[in-house]
Amino acid sequence: MQYRIGIDLGGTNIAAGVVSGKKILAEASLPTGAERGYRAVIADMARAASMAVEQAGLDRAGCTFLGIGCPGSIDTEAGRVRYANNLQWKNVPLCEELHAYFDAPSAASNDANCAALGEVLAGAARGMRDAVMLTLGTGVGSGIIIGGKIYDGMGSCGGELGHTTLIFGGEPCTCGQRGCLEAYASATALKRQTSRAAAAHPDSLLAGLAREGVSGRTAFEAMRQGCPVGRAVVEQYLTYLGAGVTNVVNIFRPQAILLGGGIAGEGETLLEPVRAYVQKNCYGAELSPMPVIEAAKLGNDAGILGAAYLR
Amino acid sequence: MQYRIGIDLGGTNIAAGVVSGKKILAEASLPTGAERGYRAVIADMARAASMAVEQAGLDRAGCTFLGIGCPGSIDTEAGRVRYANNLQWKNVPLCEELHAYFDAPSAASNDANCAALGEVLAGAARGMRDAVMLTLGTGVGSGIIIGGKIYDGMGSCGGELGHTTLIFGGEPCTCGQRGCLEAYASATALKRQTSRAAAAHPDSLLAGLAREGVSGRTAFEAMRQGCPVGRAVVEQYLTYLGAGVTNVVNIFRPQAILLGGGIAGEGETLLEPVRAYVQKNCYGAELSPMPVIEAAKLGNDAGILGAAYLR
Repeated sequence: MQYRIGIDLGGTNIAAGVVSGKKILAEASLPTGAERGYRAVIADMARAASMAVEQAGLDRAGCTFLGIGCPGSIDTEAGRVRYANNLQWKNVPLCEELHAYFDAPSAASNDANCAALGEVLAGAARGMRDAVMLTLGTGVGSGIIIGGKIYDGMGSCGGELGHTTLIFGGEPCTCGQRGCLEAYASATALKRQTSRAAAAHPDSLLAGLAREGVSGRTAFEAMRQGCPVGRAVVEQYLTYLGAGVTNVVNIFRPQAILLGGGIAGEGETLLEPVRAYVQKNCYGAELSPMPVIEAAKLGNDAGILGAAYLR
Repeated sequence: MQYRIGIDLGGTNIAAGVVSGKKILAEASLPTGAERGYRAVIADMARAASMAVEQAGLDRAGCTFLGIGCPGSIDTEAGRVRYANNLQWKNVPLCEELHAYFDAPSAASNDANCAALGEVLAGAARGMRDAVMLTLGTGVGSGIIIGGKIYDGMGSCGGELGHTTLIFGGEPCTCGQRGCLEAYASATALKRQTSRAAAAHPDSLLAGLAREGVSGRTAFEAMRQGCPVGRAVVEQYLTYLGAGVTNVVNIFRPQAILLGGGIAGEGETLLEPVRAYVQKNCYGAELSPMPVIEAAKLGNDAGILGAAYLR
């Protein structure tokens, strides 16, 4: 039986899946251990893939394609990782190295691209031609699908929607610029917004929760418990996010915009106000078709599926 | 002989061209006269097309396709103009009406899309797969070419780069929102920036020039005459424009970004600082390939050529 392999390489874990049609038949996982250097990590990527193949009761010779989703900047054409900060990789010949273990043709792309492709193949944007996914995590990642395929521009260096301007000259961003969407709509940004509000209102319920540690859920939790300070933080955050999603609508007018990452776990609490903001503020609002705005639904499986279909 | 027809419908003029290969064989123009209502305008579009065909010494039967570039929001699939403010058109069945005059298959798209396609076919972005054009005029128009084709999203409502955020909550924009790129980088915005600076510095050379009337060239002219106030206006304007172009790089990383419209006539005075800004500020600056940043070079011909190849 012929099948594909998709590997989702994360900072913590390597997840490999055996894929047939739009199903993951078997999955195996190993710790990344990036501190060991890239050769050891790539050897374990091959090992995780072999484990998944074995688990599925299949033969290694049946693998027709091996795709990898990887954080950082990937030169897809060359199969190289240009740089991946959280792995401390720079200029790693990923596909070439993997070829020593697996004979099948391979390709690599950014993990957010793979997740977006996976959601279009079998998830919340199934069957849609044009879709954009934003992941609200440590940063704001993005994957752009146009005509059913990943669009990532010259040298695979495009698709950085987290680094488009929301407030020119505003909050500093990890990229060295100021005012990027990432600096307002990432989980990191929400945590900073939460901490500031807690410091400004030390007697609030939010401040009490914050003293036990601030996460991307803290402000939402305070709001649910009736705290007006928590509500204000959430409303301001959702306005920033709404403005970012409105930009995506004005630029791409895709059929679907998916939100992923930890904060998207808030579901309708997050989605409903974002939809309302976009409906009110996007260009040509009432006269133009509205994209579906939903939470991504495949979680890590999206990355495996998308990677398996990179080519 | 078989040929195509491209029509560029503007607020002032209808320009029709007979196109073969990537050349315009003959061109004819009539005043738009939008106040007469859409039926009269469409009849004159057909008349201008016939005049161009006659001028080329060709037969009407040889026309294989007729394309139209039109300002406003166009439903390309339906061949309808959803709305075009400067023509005062709303829900006009453009292709259907034209069919009464010309038997050939037809299609319509936004004029900025057609101009971008024309520049990719035969102009400053010739042969490039992915290119984005920004026109700096009354507003900031944009045309996005992906894989050699116009990308305009669902219902042709995407590609509105002029209505992406530069400063959330900033200057009011014609679209009803605040802080759009258009509100900072259009010729209209530059005129406002110029008038404000002239009012704040009534003894400046800029203020003297401004008293004779403010255009998109006034601040550039004052700068060339050594006026520091004019220079400051230009530098601030180019910073806004540079930030907008940087966003386009981060989103699309296209092979080329073209600037069109009156202000792009400043040539290298405008292009050189924009390139420097992008090179310094775009994501992954030194490690990533840079798009070509040039002025569009076909002028109105781009719209005719692009329209002729809409399908």
